[in-house]
Amino acid sequence: MIRVGIVGATGYTAVELIKILLRHPEVEITCITSRDETCPHISAVHPRLRDQLNLNFQPLDIDRFAAQVDFGFCCLPHAASAEIVGQLLDKGIKIVDFSADYRLNDVGSFEQWYKVTHPDPDRVGKTAYGIPELFRESIAGASLVANPGCFPSSALLPLVPLLQARLIQSSPIIVDAKTGVSGAGRKPNLKFHYPECNESIAAYGIGTHRHMPEIDQIIKRFADIDTSVIFTPHLTPMDRGILSTIYVQPADQHRPGDLMDCWNDFYKSSPFVRVTDGGVATKNVSGTNFCDVSVSQCRGTLVITSALDNLIKGASGAAVQNFNVMSGFDDTLGML
Amino acid sequence: MIRVGIVGATGYTAVELIKILLRHPEVEITCITSRDETCPHISAVHPRLRDQLNLNFQPLDIDRFAAQVDFGFCCLPHAASAEIVGQLLDKGIKIVDFSADYRLNDVGSFEQWYKVTHPDPDRVGKTAYGIPELFRESIAGASLVANPGCFPSSALLPLVPLLQARLIQSSPIIVDAKTGVSGAGRKPNLKFHYPECNESIAAYGIGTHRHMPEIDQIIKRFADIDTSVIFTPHLTPMDRGILSTIYVQPADQHRPGDLMDCWNDFYKSSPFVRVTDGGVATKNVSGTNFCDVSVSQCRGTLVITSALDNLIKGASGAAVQNFNVMSGFDDTLGML
Amino acid sequence: MIRVGIVGATGYTAVELIKILLRHPEVEITCITSRDETCPHISAVHPRLRDQLNLNFQPLDIDRFAAQVDFGFCCLPHAASAEIVGQLLDKGIKIVDFSADYRLNDVGSFEQWYKVTHPDPDRVGKTAYGIPELFRESIAGASLVANPGCFPSSALLPLVPLLQARLIQSSPIIVDAKTGVSGAGRKPNLKFHYPECNESIAAYGIGTHRHMPEIDQIIKRFADIDTSVIFTPHLTPMDRGILSTIYVQPADQHRPGDLMDCWNDFYKSSPFVRVTDGGVATKNVSGTNFCDVSVSQCRGTLVITSALDNLIKGASGAAVQNFNVMSGFDDTLGML
Amino acid sequence: MIRVGIVGATGYTAVELIKILLRHPEVEITCITSRDETCPHISAVHPRLRDQLNLNFQPLDIDRFAAQVDFGFCCLPHAASAEIVGQLLDKGIKIVDFSADYRLNDVGSFEQWYKVTHPDPDRVGKTAYGIPELFRESIAGASLVANPGCFPSSALLPLVPLLQARLIQSSPIIVDAKTGVSGAGRKPNLKFHYPECNESIAAYGIGTHRHMPEIDQIIKRFADIDTSVIFTPHLTPMDRGILSTIYVQPADQHRPGDLMDCWNDFYKSSPFVRVTDGGVATKNVSGTNFCDVSVSQCRGTLVITSALDNLIKGASGAAVQNFNVMSGFDDTLGML
Repeated sequence: MIRVGIVGATGYTAVELIKILLRHPEVEITCITSRDETCPHISAVHPRLRDQLNLNFQPLDIDRFAAQVDFGFCCLPHAASAEIVGQLLDKGIKIVDFSADYRLNDVGSFEQWYKVTHPDPDRVGKTAYGIPELFRESIAGASLVANPGCFPSSALLPLVPLLQARLIQSSPIIVDAKTGVSGAGRKPNLKFHYPECNESIAAYGIGTHRHMPEIDQIIKRFADIDTSVIFTPHLTPMDRGILSTIYVQPADQHRPGDLMDCWNDFYKSSPFVRVTDGGVATKNVSGTNFCDVSVSQCRGTLVITSALDNLIKGASGAAVQNFNVMSGFDDTLGML
Repeated sequence: MIRVGIVGATGYTAVELIKILLRHPEVEITCITSRDETCPHISAVHPRLRDQLNLNFQPLDIDRFAAQVDFGFCCLPHAASAEIVGQLLDKGIKIVDFSADYRLNDVGSFEQWYKVTHPDPDRVGKTAYGIPELFRESIAGASLVANPGCFPSSALLPLVPLLQARLIQSSPIIVDAKTGVSGAGRKPNLKFHYPECNESIAAYGIGTHRHMPEIDQIIKRFADIDTSVIFTPHLTPMDRGILSTIYVQPADQHRPGDLMDCWNDFYKSSPFVRVTDGGVATKNVSGTNFCDVSVSQCRGTLVITSALDNLIKGASGAAVQNFNVMSGFDDTLGML
Repeated sequence: MIRVGIVGATGYTAVELIKILLRHPEVEITCITSRDETCPHISAVHPRLRDQLNLNFQPLDIDRFAAQVDFGFCCLPHAASAEIVGQLLDKGIKIVDFSADYRLNDVGSFEQWYKVTHPDPDRVGKTAYGIPELFRESIAGASLVANPGCFPSSALLPLVPLLQARLIQSSPIIVDAKTGVSGAGRKPNLKFHYPECNESIAAYGIGTHRHMPEIDQIIKRFADIDTSVIFTPHLTPMDRGILSTIYVQPADQHRPGDLMDCWNDFYKSSPFVRVTDGGVATKNVSGTNFCDVSVSQCRGTLVITSALDNLIKGASGAAVQNFNVMSGFDDTLGML
Repeated sequence: MIRVGIVGATGYTAVELIKILLRHPEVEITCITSRDETCPHISAVHPRLRDQLNLNFQPLDIDRFAAQVDFGFCCLPHAASAEIVGQLLDKGIKIVDFSADYRLNDVGSFEQWYKVTHPDPDRVGKTAYGIPELFRESIAGASLVANPGCFPSSALLPLVPLLQARLIQSSPIIVDAKTGVSGAGRKPNLKFHYPECNESIAAYGIGTHRHMPEIDQIIKRFADIDTSVIFTPHLTPMDRGILSTIYVQPADQHRPGDLMDCWNDFYKSSPFVRVTDGGVATKNVSGTNFCDVSVSQCRGTLVITSALDNLIKGASGAAVQNFNVMSGFDDTLGML
């Protein structure tokens, strides 16, 4: 049994992470932390976990944490995460980090997009990016893995194989993404107040969303192709799910069937990517670690659709999949 | 008072039409028809209209209808509408037709996209298209107006002035549209069964939706510009509303401010188009005849967003606006 | 034209109030206040009202307000309202007050349930209660009217005529009420954060909700009957609407038909109460000032259902109806 | 491994059943049937199960089914189920039946409430009722178990221990229940068409719902107490979940704490019933086999709330729990 701790376990990703880990045959959750000094029981913060995990939150103390856990999932905000990851690694704890701190290729980009000085610049650009379907080898040998952003996962899984195989042009790539409200986290805010966002759909962060450079840079890292995706996220009135509708131009008159063949071959050993010929819907992947991908054609433009659950394949499911790869287990252990 | 009748008044557009007409100071609703031979009272079919309109449905009889009404709103499906429109016009009844029968520029396109022989080909291409902001003059003089499709309205209102002014390129134009479920009508179908489409978003009809040629042809009709828009509708878990996210390329390095200026000028006498600089959301136009438009830029691409209520500005509100123009009233009479 | 001002116009009830008043033929909105010292334009706070009302918020200044308005709608929280109502009345301004400050029969009850000293105790118990269907005469002659709570309206409209006519027993009366989330106001709070309350239903405030004594006391005031209703509200995943399911015992073996007759007679001149024999649903009254009532029987127990829109008949619609009665207009002026 | 077949596997309960069984370590799903003669692949009917179960539907053939399975879950409608259950039992197949055919105590009641002649009257009243928390012993020894109705489960789990212990009076018992739309099944119907039931709540079947006699009769069977519950179901705009708000009178002035003690003792070995002191919400049990129960007091009346997922603890989760008990496994095997 691997003893697992979760740093910053008060949000939605932590709930889903705990639900998955409770089913995992090789895991024991031994510690959960939050900054709340009153140390509430987990069932007070997450009532749905009542009777399933008997732990109180505790403030993070590096030494105490290190004595209790072999593997850590770090669910802190960006910059906060990089303040402590190094200390945990020094104690021999392997880590999957949910923040954006170690996802980008260089410190300059991070500081440009996140408007903060990076607390741990040396690991930036050297950390494995946590999509096992793309970076299995580096994840398998890593002590630290940067868990990917939810939108990037939904865009990269369909795009990377096609770009690498030169089936589509590298520009323009338009990613029109729709996300459920849980993607905004658990902190109350007028924008996510029920009567504001229910029964409404709206775009946000046009041209400024931080997941845009992440998509570009991981394409560069994997396929050595320069891209500048046009990325527009939309807030959609549902709890969870991301649908990305991606508009690309074929190279050499390739057609949808060629793209399907490429995906089927590239993902033939990847159980969590499902190539579908009948269109995708977020409901079909809700609560699962699947990413469904499909493609149609409209007047020459290829219209790719990709669906995943932002809290599972877009966050906690991917994290456990990374944990499995880092621990030498099958990707799917405890996850189907 | 103008005596008004509604042909095919059992659907959602008819409910909204009746709600608007009940507030209209120059209208009396005198007749509603359906194919239901039992002639139910309107409150049995539309419980929300109880005590507001005291009429029974009756089967359509042209002579009886003509004796009761001066103006008809025809809410029949495509092809069914064109079977009777000519007969009503012959009786001197002015008509706003909700179907697609008279929207396109030529019979060939209609028959290609709607897969049916047109019952009244002579009026195709000669019928006024019912967006008063664009075709006021021809609507004002018309006996028959083709009420526009909901998606075309949401795309044409922002696009037409920009194309006419050559501020944007005519290709590529990508319209990624999101609609509430009422857009699919009131007939039960597994796709629109609550537990199927709630908490889910999905694209449909990629490359095959009939509103795509309608957008192209009306751009051609108004601005004499050839376009082939890429159009992808999405079913969104909400009752009503359309958000269109439109990706276009600037001509001559025009920027968002130039587009705003163009809209502000073009729509300065159009009270139902609101140019907004803070983004749009379907909730802000729900239950109204407004179309909100906005624009941002992402890496050189202009990202236009447009929001309207598919049942009002996308259907019944537009119809009453057309009625007002055809009747010599102010556009807004009874509608604010 | 009556010049109208709204004190505390940042919430959901104010939006609906403004939407109704904009259609009212005898009203001009001349002033809206909030505590925000930056005096934003109304469209910045309520984007859906863009281009419909051209006013900036201003902090409340009694003299300035009095110079601008003839009639005030006060949308402040309880206790805050009673701090200023007297000052406005002294200036000759008539007022509909949305708070609970003047609804109860005595100061002791108010202070027991609201846990605060009443700032204006002399008017408590002497203020007209704003359900015109029940208290028309006192409203018509009043300078100050206490707008009723949303749950009390939904319970009192069906119950009061039946109790007065002794068709039902005064105990037990169980009111199981379900409300949309807008009933909780516009202030962000984890309970009303979209991913918390979407796709979930829960009871709250069992035995402690402040609308419970309001129901009892208004029954006492109107019909001189002592009751102690059992009241349980539930938060329901929808924007708006209240459904109250009310369990009562018949007196003298009265049956549903007797109750329907009683309602039909009592409300024969009340256009906003619709007696229905086919059950009620919140959707049928959404966006309207109607209260639909119905009754069935289950094993001897009478099961009454009542539906209204919490923001309209449960708040702003009732307020304008009160305004109409206070101003000598027909109840329905500007409201159908 | 136990070979399992599902008769009538096209609905929502079948999807959830398959999802649970796929995780069960002692089960292999070998056969799924439907009346569709085209024998579609399961992923065509249930896209969310793509790549998880590789079976085609086949029409039910008793001999072929018996050759393939050891244990059957029968998801047919009432009366249809009782046509084939006997044949399957004769082949030595153990069965959990989802229909109402074997739930009631006598054929007369069944035929009165279900308006159809019972095809297999001899087993009525002799079949184990599938709530293991109440009827463990008879389930453990049974070849056929009647899976309980969703509403009865939500009412019986809190009520039965309290009635048996004489902590509450047996009359009146009012069960005001709210259910998600999946409870209505998967067949399209105007009532469950998204724009009809979204953003609305309504009662239905007042005094006539078939789950009412089921609640009474199981209370009689377990505790030998005569009751006549007042039961009102409500359609709530959410996919899944049942909240029952139950109004009862205490016996001997018992208070909420006494009821909590009773539940805690009665369910001390029942992992799927969670006694909570902070109120319940359907979201906390969604996707789980838990039933959460709580109790408060309002002016002497005890207000019990109970929450479960209608498709899991109210259907397929209960079915697998019954399977586990019938097969000698721990209740929770494959279910946490």
